[in-house]
Amino acid sequence: MTIKDIASICGVSVSTVSRVLNNRPDVSEEVRQRVLAAVEAKGYIPNNSARDLVRSRSDAIGVIVRGTGNLFFAEMLKTVSKEIENKGYTMVLQFIDSGADEVKAGAILEREKKLRGLIFLGGRFDYTPAELALVGVPYVCCSYTNCFGSLREEDYSSVSIDDYRTAYAAVEELIKLGHRRIAALVSGCSDRSISELRYNGFRAALRDNGIDYDPALLVETGSFEMPEAYEGMSALIERGTEFSAVFTLADTTALAAIKALSDHGRSVPEDCSVIAIDGLRVSEYVNPTLTTMVQPAEDMGRQSVQILADVLEKGAPARHLRLEAKLRPGASVKHI
Amino acid sequence: MTIKDIASICGVSVSTVSRVLNNRPDVSEEVRQRVLAAVEAKGYIPNNSARDLVRSRSDAIGVIVRGTGNLFFAEMLKTVSKEIENKGYTMVLQFIDSGADEVKAGAILEREKKLRGLIFLGGRFDYTPAELALVGVPYVCCSYTNCFGSLREEDYSSVSIDDYRTAYAAVEELIKLGHRRIAALVSGCSDRSISELRYNGFRAALRDNGIDYDPALLVETGSFEMPEAYEGMSALIERGTEFSAVFTLADTTALAAIKALSDHGRSVPEDCSVIAIDGLRVSEYVNPTLTTMVQPAEDMGRQSVQILADVLEKGAPARHLRLEAKLRPGASVKHI
Repeated sequence: MTIKDIASICGVSVSTVSRVLNNRPDVSEEVRQRVLAAVEAKGYIPNNSARDLVRSRSDAIGVIVRGTGNLFFAEMLKTVSKEIENKGYTMVLQFIDSGADEVKAGAILEREKKLRGLIFLGGRFDYTPAELALVGVPYVCCSYTNCFGSLREEDYSSVSIDDYRTAYAAVEELIKLGHRRIAALVSGCSDRSISELRYNGFRAALRDNGIDYDPALLVETGSFEMPEAYEGMSALIERGTEFSAVFTLADTTALAAIKALSDHGRSVPEDCSVIAIDGLRVSEYVNPTLTTMVQPAEDMGRQSVQILADVLEKGAPARHLRLEAKLRPGASVKHI
Repeated sequence: MTIKDIASICGVSVSTVSRVLNNRPDVSEEVRQRVLAAVEAKGYIPNNSARDLVRSRSDAIGVIVRGTGNLFFAEMLKTVSKEIENKGYTMVLQFIDSGADEVKAGAILEREKKLRGLIFLGGRFDYTPAELALVGVPYVCCSYTNCFGSLREEDYSSVSIDDYRTAYAAVEELIKLGHRRIAALVSGCSDRSISELRYNGFRAALRDNGIDYDPALLVETGSFEMPEAYEGMSALIERGTEFSAVFTLADTTALAAIKALSDHGRSVPEDCSVIAIDGLRVSEYVNPTLTTMVQPAEDMGRQSVQILADVLEKGAPARHLRLEAKLRPGASVKHI
């Protein structure tokens, strides 16, 4: 059974069958279904060896996922994987710890696997050109930017939300609900990372609404992990500092915060409101449903692959996309 | 900067540096730290091209993840990825929908990427030798077996928990707490899959404890997805059938069930107990903490890669490992 047999059975051209098998959009749904049914019925397996032989370069795209416990990246990875596949590349995936050096990991992977490009899911915000000189292929920073670094805009691509504005909007939502004693559960507030950006958004929202910042309401945990978030929140409660709401950087740390509040006899949202950033699917099924700023994970993953493909195939210039995070109302906040 | 320079700086042999860089265990911690410090300080990047050139065959191992919304596989994937890397192979990953054909996906991937082996994270339990003839390389069924199929034991490997016994133990836990009206939230009870096995364990636990099975307490959702679990559970509640406990197949569907109960004015565990199977990390941080049978995800992932490597490198025979799932007590069950 060859591709010609399938084409003949379906009464279409070989190139039409090829387009269907490569998930190309320029085929009618009716023809697509007919071809797939024939492929299914005949047990045909496309043989892409010929294509592999013709291709002179590797088709490998490296994906480095930073933070092995990050459910947001876990959700995004499926989209990235499918898009890389759909465009005819091979994904080479590597997970690294949240504190590990993604640039070095990417540079090693590039040489070992002869990568054509790289997508970093998560990374530092303060790259220097010297550091990135290790990476010899085009790359896209997915979910972060280089706003604390010194790369030239034209030398790299990025896809992310506006972390500062998203945090600002989340905190303003709490303020609109009457909260003024708002705690912030962050990784760090001067770590030149996503946490610092979101912390700055938090501070700005307080300031613009005439609320004095109380350093006693800041919890720095040094990570995005749930155990640390739980401990940090518990310590804040045990210090006896009063607050009526908590701003958290991520859905998972929000869940840990809610757990800590609950274990200390405080109900959410009755005794304390909690708001987050991420919009995981599981957060719609927890109790209470999480009120959170949804990052468009699928769109971020898809656009990252698209930008890289455009650079590789069309020599397109580097791009920087800022996508919008939207509030998903839940039941973890309350008007006071 | 070459590997020889690093060896000379550290006063060790080239092969010692190589062992450190390949994460081999046979190096003292002191030497490992010294070598890594030198690698770091000198910005040395290992170049494995020579190894790649010598190697006559591909080093690619395919991993097919079935069920894109499956958080259990998302947790396991990190271990599988790291273990494949540590053993010097390249992981080629593909996500497929929970209803998709993993054998065909694997067979296509095998030809396209010239795989040496395959690991299926999730799949059907009823393969026939004819179907699996499509796959020409050794493979490991991770998290499932072929107990409804007709493969010979020596022709494939598997790593999983005992689904029947694990479900049995979960339901017996509810019975020990005094529950007799126990609902079961399953994907299907005769789908020749993990769901049927766990359903059979549920039925056996009832029977062995002298509890009549009431078909009105069975909810079949056709999937492991949260929206369907939520709908199924809501429908059961709305039918007015009485029950004091729910057995669910997965942590995520348990969360959806708890949400449905809560939205219908029933508290867990006060008004209804809920028990699950999986043991996700996030389940320790939900409210109430989930009582669940923990699958040893890391061990399952590690052993799957080990078995495949043994088959590929030593010609070891196929193996079938049954690992134990253990109860992680939470706050979602209550004595009545």
